[in-house]
Amino acid sequence: MTQTPISGTMFIGSAAVRGTSTEFRAINPATGAELDPVFGGGDAADVKRACDLAWAAFDSYRETSLEARAAFLETIAAEIMLVGDALIERACAETGLPRGRIEGERGRTVGQLRLFAQTVRAGNWIDARIDPAQPDRKPMPRSDIRQRHIALGPVAVFGASNFPLAFSVAGGDTAAALAAGCPVVVKAHSAHPGTAELVGRAVQNAVQRCDLHEGVFSMLFGAGAQIGTALVEHPAIKAVGFTGSRAAGTALMRAAAARPEPIPVYAEMSSINPVFLMPCALAARAAQIGRDFVASLAMGAGQFCTNPGLVLGVAGPDFEAFLASAVQALDGTGAATMLTPGINKAYRSGVARLSATANVSKLGEGLAETGPNQGRAALFVTDATSFSGDHSLTEEVFGAASLAIRCADVATMKALGERLEGQLTATIHMEPGDLASCRDLLPMLERRVGRILINGYPTGVEVCQAMVHGGPYPSTADGRSTSVGTLAITRFLRPVCYQDFPQELLPDALKDANPQKLWRLQDGDLVKG
Amino acid sequence: MTQTPISGTMFIGSAAVRGTSTEFRAINPATGAELDPVFGGGDAADVKRACDLAWAAFDSYRETSLEARAAFLETIAAEIMLVGDALIERACAETGLPRGRIEGERGRTVGQLRLFAQTVRAGNWIDARIDPAQPDRKPMPRSDIRQRHIALGPVAVFGASNFPLAFSVAGGDTAAALAAGCPVVVKAHSAHPGTAELVGRAVQNAVQRCDLHEGVFSMLFGAGAQIGTALVEHPAIKAVGFTGSRAAGTALMRAAAARPEPIPVYAEMSSINPVFLMPCALAARAAQIGRDFVASLAMGAGQFCTNPGLVLGVAGPDFEAFLASAVQALDGTGAATMLTPGINKAYRSGVARLSATANVSKLGEGLAETGPNQGRAALFVTDATSFSGDHSLTEEVFGAASLAIRCADVATMKALGERLEGQLTATIHMEPGDLASCRDLLPMLERRVGRILINGYPTGVEVCQAMVHGGPYPSTADGRSTSVGTLAITRFLRPVCYQDFPQELLPDALKDANPQKLWRLQDGDLVKG
Repeated sequence: MTQTPISGTMFIGSAAVRGTSTEFRAINPATGAELDPVFGGGDAADVKRACDLAWAAFDSYRETSLEARAAFLETIAAEIMLVGDALIERACAETGLPRGRIEGERGRTVGQLRLFAQTVRAGNWIDARIDPAQPDRKPMPRSDIRQRHIALGPVAVFGASNFPLAFSVAGGDTAAALAAGCPVVVKAHSAHPGTAELVGRAVQNAVQRCDLHEGVFSMLFGAGAQIGTALVEHPAIKAVGFTGSRAAGTALMRAAAARPEPIPVYAEMSSINPVFLMPCALAARAAQIGRDFVASLAMGAGQFCTNPGLVLGVAGPDFEAFLASAVQALDGTGAATMLTPGINKAYRSGVARLSATANVSKLGEGLAETGPNQGRAALFVTDATSFSGDHSLTEEVFGAASLAIRCADVATMKALGERLEGQLTATIHMEPGDLASCRDLLPMLERRVGRILINGYPTGVEVCQAMVHGGPYPSTADGRSTSVGTLAITRFLRPVCYQDFPQELLPDALKDANPQKLWRLQDGDLVKG
Repeated sequence: MTQTPISGTMFIGSAAVRGTSTEFRAINPATGAELDPVFGGGDAADVKRACDLAWAAFDSYRETSLEARAAFLETIAAEIMLVGDALIERACAETGLPRGRIEGERGRTVGQLRLFAQTVRAGNWIDARIDPAQPDRKPMPRSDIRQRHIALGPVAVFGASNFPLAFSVAGGDTAAALAAGCPVVVKAHSAHPGTAELVGRAVQNAVQRCDLHEGVFSMLFGAGAQIGTALVEHPAIKAVGFTGSRAAGTALMRAAAARPEPIPVYAEMSSINPVFLMPCALAARAAQIGRDFVASLAMGAGQFCTNPGLVLGVAGPDFEAFLASAVQALDGTGAATMLTPGINKAYRSGVARLSATANVSKLGEGLAETGPNQGRAALFVTDATSFSGDHSLTEEVFGAASLAIRCADVATMKALGERLEGQLTATIHMEPGDLASCRDLLPMLERRVGRILINGYPTGVEVCQAMVHGGPYPSTADGRSTSVGTLAITRFLRPVCYQDFPQELLPDALKDANPQKLWRLQDGDLVKG
């Protein structure tokens, strides 16, 4: 294990650069204490240097062999592990998250890099296609036409506050972009700059160990309104990955659309993740669902994009039994340190807004705060008519607050679902007797969400081939995509077609000999080798 | 063969509706004469009815079986053929295009529908993925997680002026959207309303014959600024397909981005399709290239998105031989009727602008006009420095005009390529002696264009699996896509994930039994069940 000091610097290519435009420190939210060292935020000149380097690295990096690129991702994972306990300790101090959670998140982060390495090697994402020439076709011969996908270009990645490792410097967007062949310029989140520096140095080490162009990776600190906008506006940047608030995400969307060359923005923004409790499920296990629901609600102080912020059931004794069980579970749920003073303040203000809303009552809450920046879980209840009449009740309260809705019947639950904006997830609790109702509900949910769960809880997002962590606007900027799972690589690709190329000029993926042993669509048939 | 009268109506679901907001007639550009009948343009209420019907049709249409949807596409093709010669005659009259071209375009249009039918049946576009549960995994069990792609929602398709069949009412965007499971609302181009009505009725007949919800297809007439904007702004519309001018395309992009729920716009806009003539190719066959280049330039009065508007070579005797041959070929090239008086006027003004530009000379031109609305092909020449200094020289002149650039060397050709905006195509003429120069040029071209051709001409876009008719902005609004070829189906899809679903609730594509016999990514391996 290497002890790596934190020096307060950014990384621009192979250089460690001290930003000179602003100074800031991390804060330990559990104590309110400022942490050493002082960090320096960058300016527009730093953005320009990083983006120019990324552009310079692009052509060579996107043509690295599949094996070289996969090895690079695995080397990043290894370098992150080499940082050792210093990373865990710093991340805990900067986020208030417990050690077990941070260790798990590190495992997820390196696992994600390794899964993308496998994905790169398999090469299905290239979507290689070959339509051979038909010289004798009448009335016109057909040319030899081939297609592959290539990297879009350098990608700007904005680190999220709530996953200091898995959605940050070397998180999902960075892994997917690097896997696709895109250099990455990260704007690290200022809430965990020490964690960011440790991970950033690990990536920088991996770039060097793998003998790649230094411009493949840079990492900047600075205010979003300055550094972030400059990054999105730089002509070398060809796509943006972001996880955060709806206000910040839509600002990036506007900036990207206003460029001389508009670029795609993959922003994951807000979601209240409705949970539909069907009658037979409530009849069978209302108390158990109440307990498990609160465990999901309070996990990580509720600071997940997939936190269940809305729960719907048919009014009656079974739904009341669920609510009573949830209230009882809350009563044993301790307040938890939130990520930043700002997030805690916003949570308190969201809870206060719900408390003050007409026809909304606070049914129960967790144990009182015992330290700074703690959030106390809370469950509110209202009726369907009041919910329909107040759009503000569909807005995300980031933290462990949820709103239950007493509905007249399953049809009302469905009708309320139709009024919701796009969501990352929806959950149904059901028993066999609910099958017909579920069939009725599912088309509406498919149109509105990225992932539908049966008899589970939306928190906990598996990193795998089939995951979708995405959904229609405003849960994300672009519902055609996911930010978790291997499909995310397609965000950063575009197709290019090669017509009548001699073998010598074709990329390996499209050569007759298929040296990479790819699955290819050959004259309409999927074949390998 | 059925004789189908043209009545001047729009189609809203199963109804033929006379628009009441404006009246207009088609014009025969070859004579300037107005054609019968009078057409009625629609209004916002017509847009609302069509979009509401499309929304009502969406859930049932997107879940039609693969076979039913494929049969629908094939029925549209059959119905178009059933219109018979009336369609060919009307399209010729409305566009000034010769019968052979229109017959060929009809073949391409029905061929495209049939190719999408095959694509729907094969089902690869569903990208079905199954990650089975791992109940014994430590430290946490894994859920059963499955993914498929579903249709985005109703799509607004804007017919193009220059392909009255293949990029119009039942053209590429409509075929791809219907294949994906999206209802379509077409805004037909007012330059060929009779052709649009005949094709629109064929689609409407197919909807009825296949017993689909009437909202699967509607077709409206009207001014873009009214009907078009209302269509893009309607909340039921979830994506836009457009082929036309940069001004109109970027206006749609702005309208789509400004919606409460922004939606993707696939606009194909402008491209000058650079042709790079490498030294050994010119040494070997300058005269032949000159003749073939002019044939491509003048084809269809130059009214193709892929028309070669720019040609670069190293100054010297071989490039002059190419230019002389091109000038000679132009000298035997008749003026051709353009699609509309407006397009002809814009072409004349573009040619006049080039003629008046400092350091640009007209090298040669086609034969003089002999009738109304004719365009006369023209070849201009300039030098690399003048080209670099005047951004207006990179703007598309829609029609048979091209600009040749005398460059000092191949490095200059490459440097000028780096200054170009995104393009649909680039073409290289080469011989084995040019291989090294081509290798140097290709990375730049891959970054800038959707399709690269060797020793061919960009006009003529094959409809196949591997075609890319797309490219970076501003050639299209979204370089991650294509408007020709089977990959176009992915424009209108988004992924949805199903977690821990009982078999009874899974869509067929994700059931264990794989009843559709799809290729699926099963635990990371591509298998066909």
